[in-house]
Amino acid sequence: MAKNFDKISLKDAPRSELHDALKLTGAEVSINVLPQGASVPFVHSHRKNEEIYGILEGKGYALIDGEKIQLAAGDWLRISPAGARRFFAADDSAVKYVCIQVKAGSLEGYTADDAEIK
Amino acid sequence: MAKNFDKISLKDAPRSELHDALKLTGAEVSINVLPQGASVPFVHSHRKNEEIYGILEGKGYALIDGEKIQLAAGDWLRISPAGARRFFAADDSAVKYVCIQVKAGSLEGYTADDAEIK
Repeated sequence: MAKNFDKISLKDAPRSELHDALKLTGAEVSINVLPQGASVPFVHSHRKNEEIYGILEGKGYALIDGEKIQLAAGDWLRISPAGARRFFAADDSAVKYVCIQVKAGSLEGYTADDAEIK
Repeated sequence: MAKNFDKISLKDAPRSELHDALKLTGAEVSINVLPQGASVPFVHSHRKNEEIYGILEGKGYALIDGEKIQLAAGDWLRISPAGARRFFAADDSAVKYVCIQVKAGSLEGYTADDAEIK
């Protein structure tokens, strides 16, 4: 019987993508580091996917539809597919963040509605 | 026009759930802290949902289908819906982790196949 899990231990890297490494079927998850003063060099939106960003360390900001959103460790953000987004580290700090990509509207039940206690 | 994002700044808590706070539609995301020596007090599996766990701080272990999986900061784990799982902090360390719940098989395209560069 195939085992019901996969595990990866990440090394320090500018970007680590988990979809293929963990055989994910419901999300892509990436862990990203932008050095102090750096930014993702393009603006993007999505066709079908909602993105969820969590700031793990440091600080920075996002531009979403032209609005500047300050971000620091402990902040979490949902961006709808249509949002035009670009991410920046702060001028005086790197920023480490997780980005979760899921199909918008795909979640049905969750937690108490989907779990079975053994 | 409704804005394309929501943001939350988390406070220290044993468990923070993001689905309602961020109006998520494709995932539930929770940030959890188990104190040193503590554990989630039940074994559970899921009906439809894949879970992705990322260890943010500290260390602990999971029992999955009876197998003990050591976990430390930087480790990420996929668990298929059927996996019977239970999480534990280490005897000498708390553990902080993110749990992402998504519908198994729901992701279609992602990254280059779903993004539009502006």
